Amino acid sequence: MNVVIGIDIGGTKTKIGLVDEKGKCHIKTFFRTREFPDLDDYLDKIKSVSDELVENLDKKVTILGCGIGAPNASSKKGTIENASNLVWKGSVPILEKLKERMNIPMRIMNDASAAALGEMLFGGGKKMTDFIVITLGTGFGAGIVANGQLIDGYDGFAGELGHVDMTIGDGRLTGLGVRGGLEAYVSATGLKRTIMYMLSKYLVVSKFRGISYNDLHGEDITKAAEEGDIIAQRAFDYTAKMMAQALANFTAFTQPEAFILMGGLTNSGKWIMEPLESYFNEYLLEVYKGKVKLLESSMDGKTAAICGAAALIWENEKS
Amino acid sequence: MNVVIGIDIGGTKTKIGLVDEKGKCHIKTFFRTREFPDLDDYLDKIKSVSDELVENLDKKVTILGCGIGAPNASSKKGTIENASNLVWKGSVPILEKLKERMNIPMRIMNDASAAALGEMLFGGGKKMTDFIVITLGTGFGAGIVANGQLIDGYDGFAGELGHVDMTIGDGRLTGLGVRGGLEAYVSATGLKRTIMYMLSKYLVVSKFRGISYNDLHGEDITKAAEEGDIIAQRAFDYTAKMMAQALANFTAFTQPEAFILMGGLTNSGKWIMEPLESYFNEYLLEVYKGKVKLLESSMDGKTAAICGAAALIWENEKS
Repeated sequence: MNVVIGIDIGGTKTKIGLVDEKGKCHIKTFFRTREFPDLDDYLDKIKSVSDELVENLDKKVTILGCGIGAPNASSKKGTIENASNLVWKGSVPILEKLKERMNIPMRIMNDASAAALGEMLFGGGKKMTDFIVITLGTGFGAGIVANGQLIDGYDGFAGELGHVDMTIGDGRLTGLGVRGGLEAYVSATGLKRTIMYMLSKYLVVSKFRGISYNDLHGEDITKAAEEGDIIAQRAFDYTAKMMAQALANFTAFTQPEAFILMGGLTNSGKWIMEPLESYFNEYLLEVYKGKVKLLESSMDGKTAAICGAAALIWENEKS
Repeated sequence: MNVVIGIDIGGTKTKIGLVDEKGKCHIKTFFRTREFPDLDDYLDKIKSVSDELVENLDKKVTILGCGIGAPNASSKKGTIENASNLVWKGSVPILEKLKERMNIPMRIMNDASAAALGEMLFGGGKKMTDFIVITLGTGFGAGIVANGQLIDGYDGFAGELGHVDMTIGDGRLTGLGVRGGLEAYVSATGLKRTIMYMLSKYLVVSKFRGISYNDLHGEDITKAAEEGDIIAQRAFDYTAKMMAQALANFTAFTQPEAFILMGGLTNSGKWIMEPLESYFNEYLLEVYKGKVKLLESSMDGKTAAICGAAALIWENEKS
């Protein structure tokens, strides 16, 4: 069986798996990224974990290549550039250094772009030529497919939509110091910040008056909304409204047939999706109304990032 | 000599010319669009004017096809849809009806997208795979080239960036009723509106206190700025700031190598370009700084739209 090594580099975990041409992940594992502050140690670890996966799989496999998804990755340069939630600073020549250890075809890409490629090859984007994948995790990421191709940008940094200014001069700062940046509102962190904002704005009773910012978790907010907590419900409504505004604006750019949403925030289900759908259709320009779908990713959340990374290699094998 | 008929349909004028493969317009003419409120009369006029151009040219030519740029045109459907500044309402099947009169290869496209194709084939975009053309006329248009291809969108309406909301809930209405829409600020009309706003905000002496909105023209504003009129200068600064904010946001989408600017507002030269450059570099996300050029179109303003329309056919001939 032919497989591709898919690697998802995140600030917390590095996930590695072996993915076949249908996008099935046959075996996977992870380790904690921060335990390897030295880049060489980190890459040695990737090499050894990959070898273990191949050994542990009960079938004989041929490795066709290795695809990597990572924050702030430049597909054209093969580097990770100043990623705010990774320990290695500056421009990290990760592809070059990993090639010294594994002599196979290799590609790296921004994690959200890799997710879009995964949807294109294996998921809901299979039959679409124009769609945008939105990853809603700690931050806000976007991978854009137009004319049936992933949009890279001049040197590989297209789709940094989490830093689009939503407010002109008077908004929250993102982790990158962008005032009013979208991801300061629409992300797991954004939702937490909005809980704080709602506690400042209203005096209604809420369970969140007894929970500190640091102790706040996304799933608690969903649970509170279910239980009728007004602050939680208003926070979701506010988040959905901001997101709808952003997606309506993005539509005017490449006119996607659909937005495919994935990541933590989508687990809040109807609390985010229902108001999102309603505001989105309200904000959409007349010429686009009724033509743009909001879909939740159909890919398995536990392996979607690994399969997206593997898609970088499968894309070339298939074409 | 082989030529293509290039047609630029505007609210005021319809311009027609014959364009060779190098993008040279050998002969051109225009007529007033509004004099033909009946679509059949209008298309008969296009046919007769095209025939006249061929007769009047001193060389023998072969017509390879006809390319059309028009507001709100859908390239995929061959229609013009609800264009606010054209007399024909609803969905106008212009390509189908024109084919009944001229049996040659024919394509239609949004005027700003046609301009982008013109820059790609004949202008400053020749060596670039990722750029965005911004047309600054009565309105604000955009044509997006990424991965070396024009981005069409799901059914041909990509690049409607004049209607991106810049203000979240508290802005000017565009002609399409979009509150806070970019073109309500950044366009010839937007600049006039900003003069009114500056007259409301400040009490300084200005020649514009004696001129009505209807009597106000772009070139007068440039002239006044030259003469030291504070209201004119502040209006340019405000316009440039809004535009810089928008272009910085757009950069995060497809990461273009350059924005190529064309149309009336660029004639205001340094009054718009200098503050634009300065604000743009201030607003740009760190990862893009120093990598995105702001260029003025090098194409002849009088024929750029005709050549852009002709590029729709030349693109296929050349590939």
